[in-house]
Order: sequence, then structure tokens, then C-alpha cells
Amino acid sequence: MSNNNEIKIALKSWENEQTRFNKVLDKISDETLLQEVAPAKNTGIYLLGHLAAVTDAMMPLLGLGQKLYPDAEKIFITTPDKAGQAMPTAAEVKTMFAKVNTAFSEAIKNMPEEEWLHKHNSVSAEDFAKEPHRNKLSVLLSRTVHQAYHGGQISLLV
Amino acid sequence: MSNNNEIKIALKSWENEQTRFNKVLDKISDETLLQEVAPAKNTGIYLLGHLAAVTDAMMPLLGLGQKLYPDAEKIFITTPDKAGQAMPTAAEVKTMFAKVNTAFSEAIKNMPEEEWLHKHNSVSAEDFAKEPHRNKLSVLLSRTVHQAYHGGQISLLV
Repeated sequence: MSNNNEIKIALKSWENEQTRFNKVLDKISDETLLQEVAPAKNTGIYLLGHLAAVTDAMMPLLGLGQKLYPDAEKIFITTPDKAGQAMPTAAEVKTMFAKVNTAFSEAIKNMPEEEWLHKHNSVSAEDFAKEPHRNKLSVLLSRTVHQAYHGGQISLLV
Repeated sequence: MSNNNEIKIALKSWENEQTRFNKVLDKISDETLLQEVAPAKNTGIYLLGHLAAVTDAMMPLLGLGQKLYPDAEKIFITTPDKAGQAMPTAAEVKTMFAKVNTAFSEAIKNMPEEEWLHKHNSVSAEDFAKEPHRNKLSVLLSRTVHQAYHGGQISLLV
């Protein structure tokens, strides 16, 4: 069996996560998305924006292109929820999530499979020589798990 | 690069998930674990028992041995939460989760790496010939994502 199969499994895991996540998201109205997932916890809109921003950041990290929403990092990653930042509307954040995921899916569709085994852009060539598991595939896996974590929280709004 | 690296990445992803999960669990008292993760949603104890039962079920599924807690499936998988089933105490469920994970970690430590690419025990030889991605590694990945999903929910009790 070739490397290809392991790579396919990881890509399939990402796709499955997107499908599952979008099924949940389709059941959440814009109004409900503004609510906290549990009392005094993050709002659905913040978590959705956070996931969109994290996927968008994979574009430069994996050498796939520029971010679509460079401002999202400040609003949804470096600033915590309910810290007074100006926030797009729920509909805008849903659109952002969909656009980022479409762009990312398109970009990885055109990526040669062996490229997944290359280093990602936040590891130096020296470190990668010592730690060859710090490749693009490991980034995708870690983001899949990260989305599932917050996806479980957002699903509480259904 | 050998197959080994992709397998190592998936195993590392499972280990990281356990570490992260246990850090959260350590912060949740037995009393708090009995609470719902959000109003009218599953309780922490049910979700923890559910995760333990799912990991326990990987033992026979991956050909690693028998389940440690064969009764857990009925209580925590086939029966939904708050359906009147007799439930172990929070301390017992925490112990169950720890024991199952220790046994599973030990079992996969002794598993030859190439074994991850073999078929798991709920796919037939014929189907596996057509769909070689239905291997043991894909089961582990899917369980990692599944645990992260419910882990995100249990973390709301912190």
C-alpha cells in the first residue's frame, strides 16, 4: 500500500468533518447563532468566525495562497469573545465560513499528494529535518480535530 | 518518506487528544460531571461514559482483545442519556475512562505499524479489497475526531 492511502484517509477525515459540521450549521438560524453555546461561554457566531479564521490561516501556512479575510484573525483568534470588538453579522460570518472552506477545498484539490508530506511554513528547514512529522498533513489533522472540538460546542445550539 | 510517518502523525494526534482531554477532565469534580453541559443537553458523566465505551469497543474492532466493560455499550451508546438506565457513579466512570485508555494505549503500543493498514473487523475482505482506506488507521482517526467533538462539550463544565 502506498503513502497515498494514508493521505486519502486524512483528507477524507477533513471532508467528513466539513459535511457533518455544515449539517449542524444549516439547522442554526442567524438569531440563534448569536447565543452563547452554554451559559457564560462563547457565542456560536464567535466560534464559527474562529473556525473560519483558522481555516483561512491554513492558506499561507500550507503555501496555498493568501488569506481571504486577513482581518478575521484579530476579531476571532487573538481577541476573545465579548471583548467589545466590532463583529460582522451572523449572516456575514456564515458566508465567510462557506467562502473560506470552498477556497480551501479548491486549493487542496489541486495540491499534488506528495506535497502533504512537505514541511509547513511555520517550521524551519533545520527543524523539519529533525522532525519530519511536522508536515502539511499534520496541520490538516490538527485543524480537523480543532474544528470537531468547537463543532461539538456549536451543535449545542441546535 | 515511509508510510511510518503518516501512521506516526495519526497516532500522535490520538495521543494529543488524550492529553488535552485529560487536562480538561482533571478540572471537573465528580459533582460537576453530573451536570448537563448546556441546558437540556447531555450530562458530562454520560458523555464521558460514552467516550470510554467507544474507545473500549475499538479493542475487538481493531483485533486488540476483548472489551473491558462490555455492559457500557448499552448504558452509554445504545441508550440515550437520562433514559432511566442505572448509571455508575462519576468516580466509577472516570475510572472506567482511565482504565480503557490505558489498556488501549498499551495494546496499540505493541501493534506492528503495518497492522494499521490492515482492515478493521467490521469490514468484509471483499469490501476492503475495493475500499482499502477502510483500515484500522481510519478507525483511529474517526475516534480521535469523535472524542474531540464531545470533548469540546465536556469542556463547557470547566
